[in-house]
Amino acid sequence: MKYCSECGSPTVKKIPEDDNRERDCCESCGVIHYSNPKIIVGTVPIKDDSILLCKRAIEPRYGKWTLPGGFLENGETVSQGAFRETLEETNTEVEMGELYAIFNVPQINQVYMLYLAKVIKDDYSSTSESLEVKFFEEADMPWEELAFPFVPMALKNFFVDHKVGEYPLTTHTIERRK
Amino acid sequence: MKYCSECGSPTVKKIPEDDNRERDCCESCGVIHYSNPKIIVGTVPIKDDSILLCKRAIEPRYGKWTLPGGFLENGETVSQGAFRETLEETNTEVEMGELYAIFNVPQINQVYMLYLAKVIKDDYSSTSESLEVKFFEEADMPWEELAFPFVPMALKNFFVDHKVGEYPLTTHTIERRK
Repeated sequence: MKYCSECGSPTVKKIPEDDNRERDCCESCGVIHYSNPKIIVGTVPIKDDSILLCKRAIEPRYGKWTLPGGFLENGETVSQGAFRETLEETNTEVEMGELYAIFNVPQINQVYMLYLAKVIKDDYSSTSESLEVKFFEEADMPWEELAFPFVPMALKNFFVDHKVGEYPLTTHTIERRK
Repeated sequence: MKYCSECGSPTVKKIPEDDNRERDCCESCGVIHYSNPKIIVGTVPIKDDSILLCKRAIEPRYGKWTLPGGFLENGETVSQGAFRETLEETNTEVEMGELYAIFNVPQINQVYMLYLAKVIKDDYSSTSESLEVKFFEEADMPWEELAFPFVPMALKNFFVDHKVGEYPLTTHTIERRK
């Protein structure tokens, strides 16, 4: 942030009174601009022993496979956001299940919340965000072509849990290479 | 948002190309400014059959009792944020437990993530954010003096679960009165 979004004056980084962190402060109108982590919501879309993955049609990681997900929008619950993102990336309306995994990525100020979901229709298809949408079993999973670190972590966990038939919530913290 | 935080020009609300929601867009430098929900992290700080509550020293709800919590900060994991907020509001370092409750408050673009925590030291005390910090059992809980809707919801759930000795994660959506 360089300019105040309320009055257009230049902002300065400083620790406001009664605070202990540097914020973007406007010395003209007095507004303090806070920046906080964002929530990424998504699903593990399941049918029998297969997971529905999306081949990314957008950067970053164009052409890599991922679980459907994206930024939670204002006015949504986390589950609604995960459902919407899955619809936008796979064209199918899943049956939402339980929260399955939380991934903290503190270096980029993101928190991922991943839900189990059942694929209940056969109408999945590519979208403007996905070049291809396809089911993979564990044996044919494209492990070397997955988009983000959370994807193989979630999928490996899932296939272990799926053999047992229990899907406890797990929390992970992903440290990015500097 | 009225002015672009990157270049200081006035912004307009419009739906960007390849998007389906109105955003604050700068027609001068082209930056799209996204606004997304924020995460509030907190704890249910437990000792035996009692919960440690804080009497708020700040607005909103000055003088009302609440569970310790506040905005997740950049660079933190959700659990680290919940620990920090508890320390800032009660002066005690709790032993963090499992995620216990998620509260969606979509009308104000907030998601609460509440963790179980054990109070393991006797050094809790009032802080700049809390007029008073005090343990309450179920029987003496100040039900009429609680700060936010999520607080009685979490506490009622907790005392039910505490009798059984199992604390499953629950998710709630709070609709605010218009």
